[in-house]
Order: sequence, then C-alpha cells, then structure tokens
Amino acid sequence: MTGIKEQIAELTRGTEEVLPEGGLVAKLKQARPLVVKAGFDPTAPDLHIGHTVLINKMRQFQQFGHDVRFLIGDFTGMIGDPTGKNATRPPLSIEEINANAQTYEGQIFKILDPEKTTIQFNSTWMSKMDAAGLIRLAARHTVARMLERDDFSKRYKGGQAISIHEFLYPLVQGYDSVEMQADIELGGTDQKFNLLVGRQLQQEFGQEPQVVMTTPLLEGLDGVQKMSKSLGNYIGITDPPGEMFGKIMSISDDLMWRYFEVLSFRLLADIKSLRKAVDEGKNPRDAKFELGREIVARFYDETAAEEAMGEFVARFQQGAMPDEIPDVDIACTDGKIGIAHLLKGAGLVSSTSEAFRMIKQGAVKIDGERIEDRSLELSVGSTNIYQVGKRKFARVSLN
Amino acid sequence: MTGIKEQIAELTRGTEEVLPEGGLVAKLKQARPLVVKAGFDPTAPDLHIGHTVLINKMRQFQQFGHDVRFLIGDFTGMIGDPTGKNATRPPLSIEEINANAQTYEGQIFKILDPEKTTIQFNSTWMSKMDAAGLIRLAARHTVARMLERDDFSKRYKGGQAISIHEFLYPLVQGYDSVEMQADIELGGTDQKFNLLVGRQLQQEFGQEPQVVMTTPLLEGLDGVQKMSKSLGNYIGITDPPGEMFGKIMSISDDLMWRYFEVLSFRLLADIKSLRKAVDEGKNPRDAKFELGREIVARFYDETAAEEAMGEFVARFQQGAMPDEIPDVDIACTDGKIGIAHLLKGAGLVSSTSEAFRMIKQGAVKIDGERIEDRSLELSVGSTNIYQVGKRKFARVSLN
Repeated sequence: MTGIKEQIAELTRGTEEVLPEGGLVAKLKQARPLVVKAGFDPTAPDLHIGHTVLINKMRQFQQFGHDVRFLIGDFTGMIGDPTGKNATRPPLSIEEINANAQTYEGQIFKILDPEKTTIQFNSTWMSKMDAAGLIRLAARHTVARMLERDDFSKRYKGGQAISIHEFLYPLVQGYDSVEMQADIELGGTDQKFNLLVGRQLQQEFGQEPQVVMTTPLLEGLDGVQKMSKSLGNYIGITDPPGEMFGKIMSISDDLMWRYFEVLSFRLLADIKSLRKAVDEGKNPRDAKFELGREIVARFYDETAAEEAMGEFVARFQQGAMPDEIPDVDIACTDGKIGIAHLLKGAGLVSSTSEAFRMIKQGAVKIDGERIEDRSLELSVGSTNIYQVGKRKFARVSLN
Repeated sequence: MTGIKEQIAELTRGTEEVLPEGGLVAKLKQARPLVVKAGFDPTAPDLHIGHTVLINKMRQFQQFGHDVRFLIGDFTGMIGDPTGKNATRPPLSIEEINANAQTYEGQIFKILDPEKTTIQFNSTWMSKMDAAGLIRLAARHTVARMLERDDFSKRYKGGQAISIHEFLYPLVQGYDSVEMQADIELGGTDQKFNLLVGRQLQQEFGQEPQVVMTTPLLEGLDGVQKMSKSLGNYIGITDPPGEMFGKIMSISDDLMWRYFEVLSFRLLADIKSLRKAVDEGKNPRDAKFELGREIVARFYDETAAEEAMGEFVARFQQGAMPDEIPDVDIACTDGKIGIAHLLKGAGLVSSTSEAFRMIKQGAVKIDGERIEDRSLELSVGSTNIYQVGKRKFARVSLN
C-alpha cells in the first residue's frame, strides 16, 4: 500500500469535508484495506459527469488497495414514497431495480475496476428486518436531531408536510453502515447529515464509527449553477464523443482547473506543472484539449478522443477560434430564447434582422457547427460558443 | 337490542368526549353489534377502581349486545423502551405478558362477561409486519401532526429528547383499529390523540373510521387529585372488603354522586331518584352505604358486602374491633422499640411523624387504651393490639 501521506493528499483532493478531522489518518494508520461505502439511489441511473466526482474518489481508494463497496439502496427504492406525493420516487419493482443496477454497472465500470468493486443491495439485510427491529432502530435517534437536517428544518418551519417515514430513511441508510462495518462513507455534501447518522449508529452498535467524506456538487458548464440534467448545463457520460469534447472546450479557463482537480485522474503534481506552464505562456486551450481527451478516452477510448479533438479543430480551422472568448450570461425568463435574440443579446449582431440575414448567409455557428434554422430556440442552462462571421465569438450561458 | 335513544343516554354517561359528534348515533343506527375496542398496556395490571370507569363503559356496550374487545398491546410491550431511559417501560418477556394478561382477566371479569369478551393481542398482526410495512405505515402521518400531541409538543419545546420510535407507537396503536375494524374505541382522555390516529388510519385504509369515546380520569378519595397508586388516594380492586367499604365511606357527598355516575351500574333513572330522596331529607350516609355495598359486591360478593358494612357500622357504633386483625412480627435488635417506629413498622402509619401526630390527636390505642406518651417504648416479647384511628388495627409481636 502507498504511504499514508501520499494517500491523504490524493484522497482529500477536491473533497468538501472529512469528518472527524484526523479520522482518515487514524483509519489509514490501521494499515489494512478499509471498507469504503458509497450509497446510490436505485432510480435514475443515468449519470452525468458531476456524479463521477464521487466515483472517481472511490477509484482512488480502490487504487490504494481499499475495499470499495457500491451500495444500491434498493430496499427504500422498492418502497418509494408511499404518500404518493413525490412523483420522482415511484416504488420500483425488483426487475426495474435489477435493470437499473445493470445500467449503473455499465457506467461505473468505466471508472472503477469491476474485479475490485463489490456491489451490494441493502435489501439483503433490510428485507430481513421486522417492524420490531425498525422500532428499536428508531429508538436510537431523536426527533429534535432529525429536525436539525437542513431540508427538514426548512420544511417544518415553512409548514410543509414531512411524513414520518422520511425520518426512518436516514436511519436505514445509517444502519447500512453498521451492516457493512464501513470504515469510510463517501457522499455528496447534501448527504452529510445522513452520513453522520451512520457514524452515530455504528457507535451505538459498538463499532468504530466510519469517517465521513463529502464531495462537492460539481459546477455545471456555466461555472455558476450546480451541474444538473434539468438545468441542461451537464455532460452526460453517455454523450457522444464529439459532444462531450465540445462541451469541455466550452468551459471557462477557471472552471477548467476545477474540473482538472475533481475529474482528472492525473496526479496533483502533474496538474500543478500544467498550470505553471499555462501561467508561463502556454495556451490554456491546449490544456483544455488535454482534459477533453482524457475525459472522452475514459468513457470511450483513445481513438474516439483523438477523433473528437480532430473534428473540433477542423470545425474551427477556417474561423480560427481566438485564444480568448468573451463570456456572456443571458437571462431568459421563459426558460428558452430564440437564436436571433440570443445573438443580439450577446452583442454578436446589432439587430435581430441582422441575425436572420447572417443565418441565411450561413455565417452563424454554434460550437463550430453551422446552423440554418432561424427559428431555433436555446434552453436555459446551456453554455455554447457562438460565432458570427469569422471573427465574432462569444461563450454564452443562458440562465 | 335496546333502542338507540336509551343506549345513547347510558353510553355517553360520564364520558368526556364523543368524536365526531353524532358519530355514535350513526354507528348505532346500523343496528348490528359494533366492534368496541379498548387497548391496555401489558405492564402493571394491578388496577385501581379509577381504571374501571373504562371497563364499566365496555360492560355497558356488552350489555347492549355489542362485540367488546380487550386489546393487550403486547407487541410494543415486548419492545419496551429501547432507549433504556424510561425505567417504567422495561421490555417484557412473553411469559411476563401472559402472566399479566391472566391477572387482567382475573380483574376485568369481575366486571365484564367472560363469555362475551374477546381478548386480543396486537402481536398477532404486528409480529407479522416487516420493516417495509412499518415504513409504509409511517408514511401516513406527518411529523408536524405528531408534534401537536400535548406531551410531545411540551417536550419538544422544552428541549427534552423524543426518540423517533415514540412517533411509531401511536401509529401501531392506530393500526390496531384497522386490523380490528373497530367501530368504537374507548380510552382515557390522555389517549385522545392516539385514538384519533386510529380514525385517520382507518380512513386511509378505506374503512369507516371509528368513533372515539374518552372517559375521564377519576378523582381520588380526596376528590381533588386524580386517583393514583403513588398518591395513595385510591381504592385497589383487590383491597379487602372492609378496606374497600371504609374508603368509600370516607369520601365526600359530592364525590359520592360522581362515583355513582361512573362507577355504579345502576341506571341513570335510579340514581336520579336516590339523589332526589337525599335532597328531600334521606341521610346521604345511607346512599353511600348503597354505593359501598354495590362496589364491594362487585369485586367480592353480596355476603362480603354485608359483612363489610356490618363491621363498619359496629366499629362506629361501639368502637368495636373488626373480626380479623392482621398479625405483625417486628424484630427489635435493642430489646425495645419506640412507639412511633413500632406503628410505622406495623404499617399503621406511613411515617414516624404521622405516628407522633396521631398520638397527639389521641388516635392511638394499645389494647383499647388511648396513649399519650410519644416517647413510650415497648419491650421485646410483648404482644398487643394496636389501633390507629378508627379502622387501622394490628396485633404486633415484638421479638
């Protein structure tokens, strides 16, 4: 196993919090493969690259020789939201859960080593628990502490209903750590409360409590909002290579370094030298090329990455994309905006009629691709590079 | 079956609330035996006469031909308070619960007809429920509504811990009504919230919700505080006949009418005429005799009631001693013992200061002779009859 100091540097890289402070060092000092748990909802396994920040962290643990467990919360998934009020949590059948698990596998094994990854289902133990067992579990936590959870607190104060079963789900999730005897639990920052419940329950069950590590919610392509499907500012991990590459090329230089930190598998030292090179005059676009190629190669292969880059360069050859492209934010109140208004808003044309004329002339491109439809509408959350004529460029984010 | 109007008059007699208003009439109009549920804790089955207010109400339903169910909450009893913080709720074994159930039977069948009473245990259905089932049940109630319950509300506001399992118990109790398809649930006023949960759950399970009827917590012998073992102002239903009779004779006239209302099986019309007679000059003590005889006869028999009354009258008329005097042996290590400690050791007073007070009042006799010396010492080897007040006697041997 790699030395503790080196492990710590890479494992804490890009994390939001490690709780308790010093806990990770203490665990690593035990010099044994640690059980690393990360829980996933069995619904909606269609991941975007923001979700992979967590999976990348699992990969690091795996590479350092630890025992990585991908836990699918199928027990609660099969129950769903029994109140029927939450349309996003319909109860799932075993068949649906198995299908979703397979989709997960197809996606996570582009990052994790299938040989070294254990996939577990919490129904394994939870379906054996009876009502009395759950009551005993519920006795180990208080109403007041549960109401301290941010979302519960807001809803309670705002007079919005919280069903009592919602208090039981964090306990189930925490109890999973007991059953798994987890040493580490990884989760998004929004999961912090639930991860801490796991610590508490392990303690009550006489186990050494797990160390909690949270990863940030990744910023979307606009660099402002969190990456999300509904905002449209995402890179899907099943996006075609060209689209994936193009989206990476559309991000700002600042965001590029952020993505390097949490998405790249390069060692910190490598990234540091790359940044130094850019500071000393290297074109940041070339660094972005390297990031884009790494990401595409991860989800496809080197050849696909080369091709995606080749196509991107070719598209921009004639217009020769400038090194610096201005960033423009446009607010669209209706959730979308017509192309002519967008171009005018971005200062690329002086009027919508000029916009229509330029489109007709074939002089308008989005991410290097010529558009012909003058009634085209763009949706909020998207970020693309718009080009009018040969020299006018803008990176436009709609929000 | 008796007419609805007559049933209503007797069934609502002495109740605190009937919810919803008019609900009982609607149920009775269905002209079928109604399922009448009353839940009992499987702990502490040592009942006092205050508890029988509810059982008397069950008896009335039974007499009107309804299907009375005595529900023992053994499922939750076996779990107890898993936090271990509540010493009054230790988890009970099946053996203890069965023993307690038998003690209940011995007590309630002095009031209810064993042939017409169904005893049920909620473990019958609850032990079959799995954790998923309990989660689905928990989804049917909200945190905010649960926190409206008086005691929860006070504890939450006062910063006192409420364990989450405490939110599950009212749901289990409510679900019992679903399983039993209860038409009526009887309970003390302190149970009102839980009884209403039963209504709500039945509605959610597509059943006609039960009518909730609450009975008051009976005033103790002092007529002020609620009757309770710990306050000492109670009549235990296993008290000896003479003591039971004497305690009834000790209550005020006002309290007597209250007891007639909720403890007597006489019809309202009878009680009304008795009250009229007293108003017109009959000695209220004679009415109290009738109440005392009725109560003693209920828990023993007519003969015991006659004897208890006979002895009571004789004691008051001649200062005569009762036929039965308990024998008490007291060990005195120093060869002698002070009178106050002796009276306390014989159970004739609750404290030495009470002993001193009684001596000062001239209420203590040894072998029929009043004593005045509070520093009196008695020697080992003596046997005497000690008397405190009018009703307390003991034959004490010192050794």
